[in-house]
Amino acid sequence: MNEFKFINELVKTLEIKDKDVLVGFGDDCAVVNCGGKKLLFTNDILVENRHFIKSKISGRDLGWKLVSVNVSDVVSSGGFPRWANISIAISKEDIEYIKDIYLGIKEALDFYKFSVIGGNTSSSEKLILDFFLVGETDRYITRDNAKAGEKVFISDYLGLSRAGLELLLMNKDRYEDFELKLIKYHTRPVARIDLVNLLKESASSCIDISDGLAGDLGHISRLSRKRIVIEENKLPIHPLLKMYCEKYNKNPIDYILYGGEDYQLAFTSSKDIGNCFEIGYIEEGEGVYLKTECGNTKLKDIGFSHI
Amino acid sequence: MNEFKFINELVKTLEIKDKDVLVGFGDDCAVVNCGGKKLLFTNDILVENRHFIKSKISGRDLGWKLVSVNVSDVVSSGGFPRWANISIAISKEDIEYIKDIYLGIKEALDFYKFSVIGGNTSSSEKLILDFFLVGETDRYITRDNAKAGEKVFISDYLGLSRAGLELLLMNKDRYEDFELKLIKYHTRPVARIDLVNLLKESASSCIDISDGLAGDLGHISRLSRKRIVIEENKLPIHPLLKMYCEKYNKNPIDYILYGGEDYQLAFTSSKDIGNCFEIGYIEEGEGVYLKTECGNTKLKDIGFSHI
Repeated sequence: MNEFKFINELVKTLEIKDKDVLVGFGDDCAVVNCGGKKLLFTNDILVENRHFIKSKISGRDLGWKLVSVNVSDVVSSGGFPRWANISIAISKEDIEYIKDIYLGIKEALDFYKFSVIGGNTSSSEKLILDFFLVGETDRYITRDNAKAGEKVFISDYLGLSRAGLELLLMNKDRYEDFELKLIKYHTRPVARIDLVNLLKESASSCIDISDGLAGDLGHISRLSRKRIVIEENKLPIHPLLKMYCEKYNKNPIDYILYGGEDYQLAFTSSKDIGNCFEIGYIEEGEGVYLKTECGNTKLKDIGFSHI
Repeated sequence: MNEFKFINELVKTLEIKDKDVLVGFGDDCAVVNCGGKKLLFTNDILVENRHFIKSKISGRDLGWKLVSVNVSDVVSSGGFPRWANISIAISKEDIEYIKDIYLGIKEALDFYKFSVIGGNTSSSEKLILDFFLVGETDRYITRDNAKAGEKVFISDYLGLSRAGLELLLMNKDRYEDFELKLIKYHTRPVARIDLVNLLKESASSCIDISDGLAGDLGHISRLSRKRIVIEENKLPIHPLLKMYCEKYNKNPIDYILYGGEDYQLAFTSSKDIGNCFEIGYIEEGEGVYLKTECGNTKLKDIGFSHI
């Protein structure tokens, strides 16, 4: 949708003159200096029938997901979540669904250990949820600091959420067990808050994979002005994704490169990171390339279209 | 709309365990402690055809208003605005209108002197704007600290925005000059950032008048557990409101007590405040009363219905 790019350009015209603003637009979080601490700002809006369909996700899962997608941005910037505001715009018919959303939000706040402290309620024909989150760190990580010679890591298997979404949209009367597990990857992502300290110690750049690995690494490549080479034979394929692709005659590599909403992390480091997957390396140059037996192919810098 | 109360109750079930949270839900801003500084959190969402009608307000005015209504919350909590995120959800047809919105936002940021540092863009059938603002102060003001014996002040004339809205909705082909001025009070409110230092020095409690004086003083009364007496003969009537009420056969006192969206401030203080209007006093007891020649009347605790 081209108007997104247009708006993003428009937003950037809002000049920032404040010397306490360390990172502005264009990263997972904006960063400000507050009395020596670094605060991380992020928000994500979920609009009914654009980002979710009520009949396809329970209120509880949606509440969980609303929190998790924002926590994922804070985590990828090297911080822990602290305080959030929530905007909600509802129609009368949404009352029961909203109760469930709040159960999911509460579950997520308990899990990630932070507080919603304020918000705003309004009416609307379609359900709208906007979550604004402030995190905190002593060392923040951006997208623009990858260095030639470093390795590229992902925090876990990818592509499962996309497979889960496709299954949901098939509207099947019955799903196999492995399919239900895949759907859960889509409806119930878990932000990698367990990796914050590892990232702060080891990552030179980081991004959360919400739009697909190829597109999101494209941001690191462009902002760091480096070439990223992904080695196809190092891309890990989850057994559930393998089953899905065999059943529906799909190519798992497509799901790993272009599937979205995994909310795993891609990051660069000069170190060896035992509990993450090393999938490639950084060179001088530009673009994101896939290295296969047949040579290097430049990947399309396309994002995932949510729903 | 009863579901608002329902949601507000639901939100309060999200327990806050963080000792750095000094004020949670229920005030103009939430307040957190950040390395000795006090940060003020607020947000306001504007949904097309609920909070605004595109044909009735220019994009530029809407952008200005979006910023101003949030600044007003920070001001009434005794702070200056610092950093904001903006969420915007648009349809393709909105592009030109959005350009104007950003002009208005930019104007307001220059006027109030702070920065938008991040945000989120999404698609939607109806235009949605959500503005999240963090302010800063060394002394915050809440709604719950009015004391018996103190005086009640308003920062300027009230009721003009409501008259302006009514004029807009009359869909007249031509408006008189004084009517155009009233409309501007509705479309272009100015948050009272000039009063922040005065409030910090003098106010024991404060609220921004967005839903109408009677309703908003009701919040101070309830949270401070005090009675508020408004003296009718002290309520200032703006000459433009007088002209409006004479022309359309309305009672200006209704507009002053129940008109909304003025974004002026109501506050309590034991001091004399020269440049604001003293309109009443605080007693032990409960409720908001209007003192007239005929005695005291308890005011209905009703808010203003936006649009």
